[in-house]
Amino acid sequence: MRILIIGAAGMVGRRLADRLLTDGKLGSEAIKTIHAFDVVEASLTPANGIQIETEAGDVADEKTVERLIAQKPDIIFHLAAIVSGEAELAFEKGYRINMNGSRHLLEAIRLVGENRNDAYRPRLVFTSSIAVFGAPFPEKIDDEFFRAPLTSYGTQKAIGELLLADYTRKGFVDGIGIRLPTIVVRPGKPNKAASGFFSGIIREPLAGQDAVLPVSDDVRHWVASPNAAVGFLLHAGTMDLAQLGARRSLTMPGLSVTIAEMIEALRSVAGDQVVAHIKREHDPQIAAIVDGWPRDFRTERAEQAGFTADSDFEAIIRAHIADEEKRKTLR
Amino acid sequence: MRILIIGAAGMVGRRLADRLLTDGKLGSEAIKTIHAFDVVEASLTPANGIQIETEAGDVADEKTVERLIAQKPDIIFHLAAIVSGEAELAFEKGYRINMNGSRHLLEAIRLVGENRNDAYRPRLVFTSSIAVFGAPFPEKIDDEFFRAPLTSYGTQKAIGELLLADYTRKGFVDGIGIRLPTIVVRPGKPNKAASGFFSGIIREPLAGQDAVLPVSDDVRHWVASPNAAVGFLLHAGTMDLAQLGARRSLTMPGLSVTIAEMIEALRSVAGDQVVAHIKREHDPQIAAIVDGWPRDFRTERAEQAGFTADSDFEAIIRAHIADEEKRKTLR
Repeated sequence: MRILIIGAAGMVGRRLADRLLTDGKLGSEAIKTIHAFDVVEASLTPANGIQIETEAGDVADEKTVERLIAQKPDIIFHLAAIVSGEAELAFEKGYRINMNGSRHLLEAIRLVGENRNDAYRPRLVFTSSIAVFGAPFPEKIDDEFFRAPLTSYGTQKAIGELLLADYTRKGFVDGIGIRLPTIVVRPGKPNKAASGFFSGIIREPLAGQDAVLPVSDDVRHWVASPNAAVGFLLHAGTMDLAQLGARRSLTMPGLSVTIAEMIEALRSVAGDQVVAHIKREHDPQIAAIVDGWPRDFRTERAEQAGFTADSDFEAIIRAHIADEEKRKTLR
Repeated sequence: MRILIIGAAGMVGRRLADRLLTDGKLGSEAIKTIHAFDVVEASLTPANGIQIETEAGDVADEKTVERLIAQKPDIIFHLAAIVSGEAELAFEKGYRINMNGSRHLLEAIRLVGENRNDAYRPRLVFTSSIAVFGAPFPEKIDDEFFRAPLTSYGTQKAIGELLLADYTRKGFVDGIGIRLPTIVVRPGKPNKAASGFFSGIIREPLAGQDAVLPVSDDVRHWVASPNAAVGFLLHAGTMDLAQLGARRSLTMPGLSVTIAEMIEALRSVAGDQVVAHIKREHDPQIAAIVDGWPRDFRTERAEQAGFTADSDFEAIIRAHIADEEKRKTLR
């Protein structure tokens, strides 16, 4: 089995690749080749005799995408995207990468069949986002609530979902779109994303550093761990998609937690001294942005399809601590 | 005021142009020029000293669209589309006209502002369709039900709605998308559209000809008259759009009627002998297609915004008869 990961150098993409290398197979099929594509080269550690091809390039370049698909990967994980904040500032770049990139990928897949009279119909796992939803929305957003994004990023993801469904319906691809919750705890350095503090208030205190909390304790949000995200991708890559019918994009299950609950979980796992590193500095701008984000979902369709969320927020924190320990050992 | 109508040779486009020419103004503003664009030249009768520019061309050609917009129309009515049946058969053509056409139009508008540092921000009225919804759906579809189209045409219209909302949110255009019900009674000859019989069973009997009814009498559908459609366009062209916030596409009000109710209205207006021209010939293929179509809506947002539907189905039939009389007089 040949697997193509587009966006393999990102946090989730690299973790997915590592997991596939460790497992040596996807579902019951042995993996022969992992083709890891991104704007920068992903660094992967070979394992299980799997051939690794890393490549840096532009996902919005038609010829590049055609070449990636000409190798006829059995499964394509499409994770590449300009993130929300950048897509909002760089309007043309956002549409070029996030909309045209996805369209070219679908077209390249379709044209293999059309031009070669070939039965090529790969599995395509597309990472979408809860940014396809925009306020006002109900406290719990259900599976039939409409997409009214309030960012260009959310618009581009919603368009990707529509294209994926239509290309699947026409039989060109076997597609599934998975809307990831906000991923917490992201490893690494703090970034300037408006959502960054959700990870920061856990990650920094655990590393003995102060972290700023810019919103109030009663803010509620929808989160999943990096491991849960990889679990979603693997399940999406192996499950029978026919059961989804024509509706090929699903909101992934997550935990709906308040900041206060996150802090109490941190206290329970790591104690008061760690929690003392959280410094409350209200930022009205960030608070206003976060106010427009979904707080909770009813993810019945995804649960029926076998996707599972983290058990609780303490488990997310413990998994992060274990990951950090492993990282230190590898150094 | 300069008005651009893209799709001016179609049934609704020509009727809109005729109405604007007759009125001489849109809202309180006098119309100076109507630029009527379509794939074929529209034939319009001058009136009220309005300058008419007719032009035939390709709406999916970037340079053509740029040229149309370079003249900086104050209002653009975008009605051009490959219809549902054709978009389903001609996949590439459908995406080229219905998706790329709308995208190029929005880009051309944006780039006038970007390149010239110009405050150009025209009103854009985009005709969408209830085809953005796909079964299964509730008996009455509300304003927050999600778009899950089951045709490429519906997908392309849903993408147009998303782009329109994002370009509006970013301040490049002042856009509104209006989802038209099925238009009944369409004048002219029968066509092969799956929805054709909704008009045919009224139009042909009134003209003394037989018409085939391929579905059962209890089929329910969402319809509006050609005059109501023009009314929607005029209201969308003049109303204050700020009240819509970020959600710029609305399902237009219509009548939810069963075939049996349509036939009883025809009997009441024109008598038993006319109704006798309706021949029941069940067509399982058409019945299956129609089964996937929306039957009824709750159009609260559109009604609050001042859009109004036809009063009842008898009024639709009487308006059709009056139109036909006028047409005969003009010959």
